[in-house]
Amino acid sequence: MRNLKLVLNYDGTYFSGWQWQPQNRTVQGELRQSILHILHEEVNIIGAGRTDAGVHAAGQVANFLTNAEMSTSKLKAALNGTLAKDIRVQSVDEVDEGFNSRFDAINREYHYTISRQEKAIARQYVYCYRYELDMNKIREASEYCLGENDFASFCQSHSDVTHHRCHVERLEWIENVETIQMRIIANRFLHNMVRIIVGTMIQVGLGKIEPAAVGDILKARDRRRAGPTVPARGLCLAKVYYSTESF
Amino acid sequence: MRNLKLVLNYDGTYFSGWQWQPQNRTVQGELRQSILHILHEEVNIIGAGRTDAGVHAAGQVANFLTNAEMSTSKLKAALNGTLAKDIRVQSVDEVDEGFNSRFDAINREYHYTISRQEKAIARQYVYCYRYELDMNKIREASEYCLGENDFASFCQSHSDVTHHRCHVERLEWIENVETIQMRIIANRFLHNMVRIIVGTMIQVGLGKIEPAAVGDILKARDRRRAGPTVPARGLCLAKVYYSTESF
Repeated sequence: MRNLKLVLNYDGTYFSGWQWQPQNRTVQGELRQSILHILHEEVNIIGAGRTDAGVHAAGQVANFLTNAEMSTSKLKAALNGTLAKDIRVQSVDEVDEGFNSRFDAINREYHYTISRQEKAIARQYVYCYRYELDMNKIREASEYCLGENDFASFCQSHSDVTHHRCHVERLEWIENVETIQMRIIANRFLHNMVRIIVGTMIQVGLGKIEPAAVGDILKARDRRRAGPTVPARGLCLAKVYYSTESF
Repeated sequence: MRNLKLVLNYDGTYFSGWQWQPQNRTVQGELRQSILHILHEEVNIIGAGRTDAGVHAAGQVANFLTNAEMSTSKLKAALNGTLAKDIRVQSVDEVDEGFNSRFDAINREYHYTISRQEKAIARQYVYCYRYELDMNKIREASEYCLGENDFASFCQSHSDVTHHRCHVERLEWIENVETIQMRIIANRFLHNMVRIIVGTMIQVGLGKIEPAAVGDILKARDRRRAGPTVPARGLCLAKVYYSTESF
């Protein structure tokens, strides 16, 4: 069997997330349908990041096993010809049969973009928040998230995971004229983790939560202690890292 | 009477352009409707740039005369509360009664963005063109457009203008990892002028038109000599300049 690795980007606005659902439009479902149409084969597509409804991806990675003999360049062209314009396949490559896009990923990078002004252009990719934020406090508070921590306070309840430990490799804030972007790299992310971190950091930036209190919130392991979950549209899965790549 | 100046931005994707039309959704039409709803007054809205169907604006300027006494901050909030999310009003200011957003504008700046890769995210704001372009040739050819020239060759036929002379103050090409953007500032623009300049420069970048031939194309005053008109979605009215502002 051949193992094919896809790198893809999508505009999450009109998707009910990555993972297949019987009734709703999902990225995995659309990909499976296109592959069935092109290769006449039902494949099991594994994705590195299971993005939620409305979340975008600039560099999602997926893979599937197939008996088909079509060349990777031809398959890429066929997929982009079949898929709707809100999913694009950047590359298709044949990889080792053992490669698993989800379990072999060592780090994932997410970006969350806040717009300081309400804009019509590109509004589906940002969360508009116009109140003044103290970026020094936000940067100070962000330090508490670095390294290995239990993120139970930053995880939507009812998550079906065995533990809440995540190793955050990097967390930085990029300020532009009209936007603020949080970039975070970690080995794993819990459900809504990035959106709850951003919601908490906004509270810090407003002065409602002291930077040092973020350490206490982590220790509390209680979702109610952290800030609100910000909207999906500002979030984007930027990149997935494997052992051969570094950031 | 009070004269109110608006600065606005819009996503042109679902508009049949700026100018009012009886059957289609236009920016001027939507604004007029919102103002009628808020101020109970039929106003005549003047726009600085009459953008075509599908063309975006980051800094369109408009003005209208009114008898209404509503404060400018309240009117701005009411407009943004009434208008669809693809038009946003950035500012409302009371100006001299003689101010005319169209005739007082001394320069307009347009940006045209070409994407080197087909992407799902922000695809409605770029024209995807993947062939390799020689940017040195494009920059050399662009020099011929600077200053005062007759742009009849770069104007869609049937334009109802008395002459085709335009003064191009600046024309630059910004290269990023995934995009190429042409930024052009001129005192006036003819119908489809920016899109025909870009279409011609792509031919230059491909080696199909020599840079020096752009001078001949200008002299010919013949639309058939220039390149094709590129799609509207890559075009954005970035800014309108008045006598008090400089670029």
